[in-house]
Amino acid sequence: MRNDLPDLTALDARDRMVRGEFTALDYCEALLKRIAEREPEVGAFAHFDADFARTQAKACDAHRATGRATGPLHGLPVGVKDIVDTRDFPTENGTPIDAGRRPGEDAVVVQRLKAAGAVIMGKTVTTELGARTPRGTRNPHHREHTPGGSSSGSAAAVGAGMVPLGIGTQTNGSVIRPASFCGIVGFKPSFGLIPRTGVLPQAPPLDTLGVFARSAADTGLLVDALAGHEPRDRDTRPAPPPRLLQTALTDPPVTPALAFVKTFAWEHAEAETREGFAELVAALGETCHEVALPDTFLEGDRALVTITNVGLGRNYKPWHDRGKDQLSDFMRTMIEEGETIPAVDYLEALDWQTALRVGINQLFERYDAIITPAAPGEAPHGLDSTGNSAFNNLWSLLGVPALTLPLLEGPKGLPVGVQVVGRHGDDARLLRTARWLQSTLAYNS
Amino acid sequence: MRNDLPDLTALDARDRMVRGEFTALDYCEALLKRIAEREPEVGAFAHFDADFARTQAKACDAHRATGRATGPLHGLPVGVKDIVDTRDFPTENGTPIDAGRRPGEDAVVVQRLKAAGAVIMGKTVTTELGARTPRGTRNPHHREHTPGGSSSGSAAAVGAGMVPLGIGTQTNGSVIRPASFCGIVGFKPSFGLIPRTGVLPQAPPLDTLGVFARSAADTGLLVDALAGHEPRDRDTRPAPPPRLLQTALTDPPVTPALAFVKTFAWEHAEAETREGFAELVAALGETCHEVALPDTFLEGDRALVTITNVGLGRNYKPWHDRGKDQLSDFMRTMIEEGETIPAVDYLEALDWQTALRVGINQLFERYDAIITPAAPGEAPHGLDSTGNSAFNNLWSLLGVPALTLPLLEGPKGLPVGVQVVGRHGDDARLLRTARWLQSTLAYNS
Repeated sequence: MRNDLPDLTALDARDRMVRGEFTALDYCEALLKRIAEREPEVGAFAHFDADFARTQAKACDAHRATGRATGPLHGLPVGVKDIVDTRDFPTENGTPIDAGRRPGEDAVVVQRLKAAGAVIMGKTVTTELGARTPRGTRNPHHREHTPGGSSSGSAAAVGAGMVPLGIGTQTNGSVIRPASFCGIVGFKPSFGLIPRTGVLPQAPPLDTLGVFARSAADTGLLVDALAGHEPRDRDTRPAPPPRLLQTALTDPPVTPALAFVKTFAWEHAEAETREGFAELVAALGETCHEVALPDTFLEGDRALVTITNVGLGRNYKPWHDRGKDQLSDFMRTMIEEGETIPAVDYLEALDWQTALRVGINQLFERYDAIITPAAPGEAPHGLDSTGNSAFNNLWSLLGVPALTLPLLEGPKGLPVGVQVVGRHGDDARLLRTARWLQSTLAYNS
Repeated sequence: MRNDLPDLTALDARDRMVRGEFTALDYCEALLKRIAEREPEVGAFAHFDADFARTQAKACDAHRATGRATGPLHGLPVGVKDIVDTRDFPTENGTPIDAGRRPGEDAVVVQRLKAAGAVIMGKTVTTELGARTPRGTRNPHHREHTPGGSSSGSAAAVGAGMVPLGIGTQTNGSVIRPASFCGIVGFKPSFGLIPRTGVLPQAPPLDTLGVFARSAADTGLLVDALAGHEPRDRDTRPAPPPRLLQTALTDPPVTPALAFVKTFAWEHAEAETREGFAELVAALGETCHEVALPDTFLEGDRALVTITNVGLGRNYKPWHDRGKDQLSDFMRTMIEEGETIPAVDYLEALDWQTALRVGINQLFERYDAIITPAAPGEAPHGLDSTGNSAFNNLWSLLGVPALTLPLLEGPKGLPVGVQVVGRHGDDARLLRTARWLQSTLAYNS
């Protein structure tokens, strides 16, 4: 049995630990064994301490033995992207400029992970400052291919079975794309659902915490534990708990209506992706219609670039000041260019963001969710680039919840994700629709 | 009796109309008579229609005669700054570029005025696009002196007894300064309390609706009718009604603690203003202490200038495009310069705004209110400038409620205001403290 543990879903592992089939330490040891086998090749972790993981797992078992209530993530190991502050590990933000940096306080999401009983397995590799420049992680399905980025390590760790759950962030495409490339479920919830306090800011009107798992239900389990108002992140709002998992596990009351939206990124889609979607749409039949976005949505890409580049110029200036020679040429140039963008252009981009958010809601009056590729195709060959975020930019700008399911394959047999996008704030319904989609396609195939 | 009507407070007039001492039409006629006497000299109105005023007043009387419930402003005439959209009058924003412009919809505050039973007396003169260039209004206390700006006409109309109530806006100092110069009460409530939908945007992180009246209680009466969440102004928040008037009419439970804050604008204060404040602080005795702001507040002026200038560059570009030759040299230059300010500087200014808002709250942990000049001194001679906003800038940046009381005099016997500043969101307490201050000083003098 023990050899199967790393491939369980988090929910399955949790329930089996509740039933006493194995302990948190058993589970942790099985994952540590997998890490020992795969990590030398994959390179998912930036900071890792097997003994500290065992200590946390033993504490979970000791806690359970007392009979006291346990949190929803009790005994479940999680990998945390290395731009998320942790007291127990360095947080180096993917740059040598922050070598040895040790935050005094956990990010709010890490506090919430601990409060929910999770085991912090380690810090996962991020690209340089969460942007484009890779830091050596390999795709767990093929060592010569990128795992995607910027949340490279969390996606690869979940994809390799080293942890059941991972935390990442998305400003342009940094959760959905690596999840697609690594063959797992990635979920970027609604903008503002998970607080970012203690997480490296890149472009605050876009920055969103997201998660990696091996099922849609697992992403609901994890986001339920992370969501909720935090006064220091003024984009979060007081609201009732989203109860994602509870809704995700129910059946839709009526057959969901899906919009297949190619977006203006379709020209980037590879032949196999186009064919895969043609088959998918055919299999769904009457419940899915192709919908073209109005041309105004073309403004979205430009707005996203402006907001992102101003964010780099504003938020990464201190790194430029402290060690511009240790930055990649790409990052140094982006910061310097970002500093010159006029405020009026930035405000215009934010106005487009607002206008397009209103516009996309009209589509959700008629459709439960959008389906669209998570990436142009399978993970590209080579480790120099993390791939193309063309299929992620618009949903990042809009702040709508997006989830990718590993339903397709590319020409080399590597995974390709189907991205399911919902209405802002309707995260629970999106998870329910995604689970319905997955089971419907399994039934049809 | 009829000759006294224009000098009543709004509350007094309202209560006497309720008791049947005079009708809304009587009141309106008395004000129209005052307007006929004073308006040719003062020039407070941009658009005015005596017959339309009479029609509204008669409708008020007819409504009252039915015995149905009346609104809180029933039969009270109000002057509305000409950057606030009205269906019944042109709204020309103080620029020939908008000559004859007729909005299809009332601004939300105008809708609320009408719903509360007010009589819209006319549109009052604004400086060019609500900024610095005057449009000919004279100070009702001295024809050769400015009434201040940009809400020149509303302040002058209330100061001359043409209306008991006026609506203005403040981005830097456009409510408090003209109120001080015209010898009336001006109240700029907390940022976000009154929705701005349908009002010309200048610099949205600063733009605030404000009011003019002849007593602090009257400002509470008016703001109560205007306040409240409006989804299209995303800086307003769902909240219970502020009940300003109700609180303003009570006595403070304990003697308020006042901080006399000179601010970094003190160098601009004229000799008589300095002497007036010395006497004021002496008269208040132990209940008032001088407090120096930390030097970090020096950043406030620079932040305000950056936010304002970016706002001009962004929001007034369409006027520049449509008719830059009809703009003042000042405005044309400001728009062109505003367009070149980098976004990183703008974001830094917004960060200073946030940081200083946190900082000023520490002062309000120990003091109920701040007292400080409303302007350097009495209204300057001449109509070419609306005066200096040095004593208004910081409170505009912070978005805290500020009220000016006409308590001092300048060397020519023109009025000078004492500005009372409260904590963000504590508007009701500020009005109560202001009424206490006024009665305490009357008792001491």
